[in-house]
Amino acid sequence: KKVTVRAAAPSTRTIEEEVALDEAPLTLLREGGGDDAGSMRAKFEKMIRAAQNEICSAVEELDGQKFQEDAWTRPGGGGGISRVLQGGNVFEKAGVNVSVVYGQMPPEAYRAATGEQGSGKEMIPFFAAGISSVMHPHNPMAPTVHFNYRYFETDAPEGAEAAPRAWWFGGGTDLTPSYVFPEDAAHFHGTLKDACDKHDEAFYPRFKEWADDYFIIKHRMNERRGIGGVFFDDMNDRPQEELLAFATDMAAAVVPAYVPLVAKHKDDEFTEQQREWQQMRRGRYVEFNLVYDRGTTFGLRTGGRIESILMSLPLTARWQYDMQPEEGSREADALDAFRNPRTWLA
Amino acid sequence: KKVTVRAAAPSTRTIEEEVALDEAPLTLLREGGGDDAGSMRAKFEKMIRAAQNEICSAVEELDGQKFQEDAWTRPGGGGGISRVLQGGNVFEKAGVNVSVVYGQMPPEAYRAATGEQGSGKEMIPFFAAGISSVMHPHNPMAPTVHFNYRYFETDAPEGAEAAPRAWWFGGGTDLTPSYVFPEDAAHFHGTLKDACDKHDEAFYPRFKEWADDYFIIKHRMNERRGIGGVFFDDMNDRPQEELLAFATDMAAAVVPAYVPLVAKHKDDEFTEQQREWQQMRRGRYVEFNLVYDRGTTFGLRTGGRIESILMSLPLTARWQYDMQPEEGSREADALDAFRNPRTWLA
Repeated sequence: KKVTVRAAAPSTRTIEEEVALDEAPLTLLREGGGDDAGSMRAKFEKMIRAAQNEICSAVEELDGQKFQEDAWTRPGGGGGISRVLQGGNVFEKAGVNVSVVYGQMPPEAYRAATGEQGSGKEMIPFFAAGISSVMHPHNPMAPTVHFNYRYFETDAPEGAEAAPRAWWFGGGTDLTPSYVFPEDAAHFHGTLKDACDKHDEAFYPRFKEWADDYFIIKHRMNERRGIGGVFFDDMNDRPQEELLAFATDMAAAVVPAYVPLVAKHKDDEFTEQQREWQQMRRGRYVEFNLVYDRGTTFGLRTGGRIESILMSLPLTARWQYDMQPEEGSREADALDAFRNPRTWLA
Repeated sequence: KKVTVRAAAPSTRTIEEEVALDEAPLTLLREGGGDDAGSMRAKFEKMIRAAQNEICSAVEELDGQKFQEDAWTRPGGGGGISRVLQGGNVFEKAGVNVSVVYGQMPPEAYRAATGEQGSGKEMIPFFAAGISSVMHPHNPMAPTVHFNYRYFETDAPEGAEAAPRAWWFGGGTDLTPSYVFPEDAAHFHGTLKDACDKHDEAFYPRFKEWADDYFIIKHRMNERRGIGGVFFDDMNDRPQEELLAFATDMAAAVVPAYVPLVAKHKDDEFTEQQREWQQMRRGRYVEFNLVYDRGTTFGLRTGGRIESILMSLPLTARWQYDMQPEEGSREADALDAFRNPRTWLA
């Protein structure tokens, strides 16, 4: 076993030790932590690991190359399984992460997440399990996808007698094309809507708008990084089992929503100029993720495994000074779709 | 005259209008603002504009291509002159910005900058003038340079009777090579030290350490983005004229400190693998600037002219999953220098 010792970000209080594993363990849950197979922690881990397998298989089949896997644990419990396919036939870089994290969260973050009042200053122990993925294909006509489904729990602060335990679900799936094909957008959004509708017809309209409001690059005149999809957070207003079923169906919708679009465009012809536009849009992706994305900025501050956190960044990106698309061009149309979110479904 | 209307970031309270100018105006100071030629505002603007001319001339002479210039003002006063050389013979992207900004700063930012106590909630009017520049050469053996010299003033809050007016100087010059040449590092640091020593022999050691502490990418195990140089901020403990003279000499040291290094390495041979390492280091540059750099993050939050703020980003960058240099390689040596700042001068 390789042992990698790394210093955590200075804002955290201890030096964390990551232990690389030769292969993925049966469970990333803390041993003896009292989480039986019927607990939501265990069920959610099982769900995201099955989703990781299913999605990676579909992508490998399309690409012809295999993901490489890195598994790691931390002595305090928790760990992750990162799978990366880099320099593939179809994908420039595709990553699918599963992680289970035990940590301490600042009380303001807890209050922000739960909406609770209070002025407590103790760190709140939390548990988070999630799957997150970004896949960047080579071809500028083939879109990038991102998805993330997560389950969060907080314990009582250490030393407190009996504080309420909170839990919530969050997630989303969104598409970032460089060039916009309305029929592709309709297929993607339609597939997500069908999965939502199985649970609540109010979900898709609400979560579509939430995505449009979330993936905003404020410093770029509120340009979105792509054409959205669905996004939700802090969900705890239904039984856990119902929300688990919803997250499960949303994760299962990734392959049918996305893979056909890449299959369709992976061999499209393109010009050098179109490749540059794609690279510039990748630059915007980097800007959104490093400056605004909650998962990324949370990870950077809390000192998670950095290669897994930044796996979402594209292999290459470009910042060309004052690049403005020509009026009436396909690039201008894409930019318009990023600036003014559209309704893709009739 | 072209008129570009842009929406400011939502966090600002008004929609700012930028007006592109056909040519750079004689002064960017507010007309009728009562700043005569003897004011520090006027003297500092004159200094940074002369420095912009001098540095751009030296770079054009080396490169063989010319900078393109964009000048702009804002109706409320202030503006900037951005010069960019992109796709040159020697430089992939080089930008030299001069800007004069009148704005409103949150009281916490004011207290952080001045060290003052207080609990006032009024926005504080400020004035900031500065030159900032980043130059990225093509050749992986030729280093990137960054420098920035700025002068800051705050007025009494609107409506306040007579609050103290504060002012300070800040700045620095630092080098980011992909490969480390100790003799180049010694030349660069030595030139900066000579300029510092003319003013105070305590400056170089203090500001060299400050740079080592500032250019830290916390989430990368405290790796620095390069091999440093000098950095200082909040300086107001000497007469303004002395600090102006110091900033003037530091800006004048950029050309002798940096240009010979690019001249020396611009035609060095390199491999594809060395180019990839350079591109990966450019990725680190992007990470530092978007996540930590004060000027950039301040600019993103306050809604400045985005193309000028992000001119510092490289033309292209790369994020390869888990790229680890081989033990004993030149890349490993560079990484060691970034992780453990060295003393370059005997």
